[in-house]
Amino acid sequence: MENRYYFDHAGTSPLDEEVLEAMKPYFLEKYGNPSSIYQEGQEADRAVEKARQQVQNLINAEKSEEIIFTGSGTEADNLAVKGAAIARENRGKHIITSEIEHHAVLHTCEYLEENRDYEVTYLSVDEDGLIDLEELKEEIREDTTLISIMMANNEIGTIQPVKEIAEIADKRDIIFHTDAVQAAGQLELDVQELGVDLLSLSAHKINGPKGVGALYRSKGTKLVPQMNGGAQENKLRASTENVPNIVGFGKAAELALKRLPEKQEKLQNLRDKIIDRVREDIDDVILNGPEPGSGCRLPNNVNFCFRYIEGESILLNLDMEGIAASSGSACTSGSLEPSHVLLALGLSHEVAHGSLRLTLGYSNTEEEVDYLLEVLPEVIERLREMSPLYD
Amino acid sequence: MENRYYFDHAGTSPLDEEVLEAMKPYFLEKYGNPSSIYQEGQEADRAVEKARQQVQNLINAEKSEEIIFTGSGTEADNLAVKGAAIARENRGKHIITSEIEHHAVLHTCEYLEENRDYEVTYLSVDEDGLIDLEELKEEIREDTTLISIMMANNEIGTIQPVKEIAEIADKRDIIFHTDAVQAAGQLELDVQELGVDLLSLSAHKINGPKGVGALYRSKGTKLVPQMNGGAQENKLRASTENVPNIVGFGKAAELALKRLPEKQEKLQNLRDKIIDRVREDIDDVILNGPEPGSGCRLPNNVNFCFRYIEGESILLNLDMEGIAASSGSACTSGSLEPSHVLLALGLSHEVAHGSLRLTLGYSNTEEEVDYLLEVLPEVIERLREMSPLYD
Repeated sequence: MENRYYFDHAGTSPLDEEVLEAMKPYFLEKYGNPSSIYQEGQEADRAVEKARQQVQNLINAEKSEEIIFTGSGTEADNLAVKGAAIARENRGKHIITSEIEHHAVLHTCEYLEENRDYEVTYLSVDEDGLIDLEELKEEIREDTTLISIMMANNEIGTIQPVKEIAEIADKRDIIFHTDAVQAAGQLELDVQELGVDLLSLSAHKINGPKGVGALYRSKGTKLVPQMNGGAQENKLRASTENVPNIVGFGKAAELALKRLPEKQEKLQNLRDKIIDRVREDIDDVILNGPEPGSGCRLPNNVNFCFRYIEGESILLNLDMEGIAASSGSACTSGSLEPSHVLLALGLSHEVAHGSLRLTLGYSNTEEEVDYLLEVLPEVIERLREMSPLYD
Repeated sequence: MENRYYFDHAGTSPLDEEVLEAMKPYFLEKYGNPSSIYQEGQEADRAVEKARQQVQNLINAEKSEEIIFTGSGTEADNLAVKGAAIARENRGKHIITSEIEHHAVLHTCEYLEENRDYEVTYLSVDEDGLIDLEELKEEIREDTTLISIMMANNEIGTIQPVKEIAEIADKRDIIFHTDAVQAAGQLELDVQELGVDLLSLSAHKINGPKGVGALYRSKGTKLVPQMNGGAQENKLRASTENVPNIVGFGKAAELALKRLPEKQEKLQNLRDKIIDRVREDIDDVILNGPEPGSGCRLPNNVNFCFRYIEGESILLNLDMEGIAASSGSACTSGSLEPSHVLLALGLSHEVAHGSLRLTLGYSNTEEEVDYLLEVLPEVIERLREMSPLYD
């Protein structure tokens, strides 16, 4: 097989071999249902509880019971937003979120608007993708029950002032949820220090398995379960526990915590090298999201718009050269609409169509980045030569 | 490790080695996100579509697009009941189900009662667990939009007259959902022949992986998605696809279809042997669910009540002898309430507390059954000797 260069770790990340090793015994040997009282079941139950502690440690939660395992980060977002909002409906039906949230939050808010008569305020963002804390304060109403603002954006890597948002929410007795799916494994996460009530995670973004996520719920935060059935996960998420994947998530969380300082430094250096070199080597290029030196950009995120060409053409050409990259969110690919995130930054449809997201992972090397930096300018040049818009 | 004898295949079933082999490449090598357009993504997408066809074949659906992958059988039930009911709310808010459904259906109906002002009719069952088709017809109202009746019961193995129910529903233009989680791999399933609109499946009940289920939705049946976010699964179930588990589900479906005739015959013989011998060897025992010869009992299900003793004590004693069994549904274990299914059959609380469910799987052997039949009478006798109720 040809050499491949993978730069789409925000889309999904390869499973770590150590994670797979941790999962293996739970496929063929330790296959019990954790709700069962016999030996096989109790063994599976202990494995799930160990993983719960590993995820607890990743975000420094006070108690492991504050971790609810779900089937995905999307499910964690759905449970947080619907579950917390519906639990407080007697107080009101107003939610505040931002224009650049992941669709798992945006479409969930729309569901509540369309199906349960909610009103939702979508905060705008500045050219770096940051919300305005004063605007947030102004938009709070008597009937506001929930604020949902992501910790870090999946497309442009913007890190929001989550601690400050939590303080504002807390003062007004509003529940605060943050989607930390992209922040986990990239930033230090301390839910007690941050003061958030609800926080979403996904295993497959931190070299864990697909098909498992988690919602942190601080004790005292009420949730109406959105998956009804058995009494699993403290009656908050029915379904037989996905034991191997939960075990894998736990191991991935342990590794992410252990590797964080080293990984941050390595990826930040690679990120800065890509950004610097692309700006040097290619004309008519816009960096989307905050400047690297700002301190509010994820260490693994690069996002550019290349004028006069289409993002999809860039991706297909890079793919032919062995490079896997993305134009934005994998969840909306196939759609002809440009990214809602890039439009919210103020980019035109035309420019937003020429976006390229490169997201780094633990396994990326300097050599891989050098290859990318060799190939990318050639691809952009080739495409521009064919573009009727470029002279 | 000591020898173990596993008789809780309705709780969860061991992963088949062939299934794990099929999954393996999708952990470390083919880890792409199926929504991505580069090679790794397209490879994963093709694997998901192959699995969709394998599940399609298991139930003889007309098109593979009629299969929606979910994170569990519970999620499939939730999506079916909430999704179909909410899609037809303009017509009414009345649902008909039965008293012996799985909690994934019952608690979902309760959610709609408590949170969306639905009215739900819970059909009673006879002493074998069968609903009465005349009663069903009588309970249909102008505002009935959905009927949800399981194909086969998870505790007592009763097989409902699904085809007849589908005909009744169809005549009144009512959507019909059936939970076939326990029927799959035990009975021939042909959704076109049965005429159902919605049908739920779970991989881990057919020697597939935990954490993946599917909902069959016949074309034309409207559903409001319950997991909002990305555009995956034809916009009906947001979340990055759990590729390895979906691939495993596909393989498990293929194997289940291939093995069905042989497995049915084998398990039915083992089931009948257990039932006959227990009735011969142990006094004061009640078979819960239909007689084996009735044709309406799952080939792998045995469920007895032993008077004067507690089900939990039986399980703990069997466990010490190396035998894994259940008192009923794993999803409610830990609860002190007796099974809602056994109570619906008309059993007293006291008798229902002494239940033992033994569910057979493809891997069980005649030798394992012989060991069970040697140990069980001893365990029952020992417990009864200690029971103040038994003289």
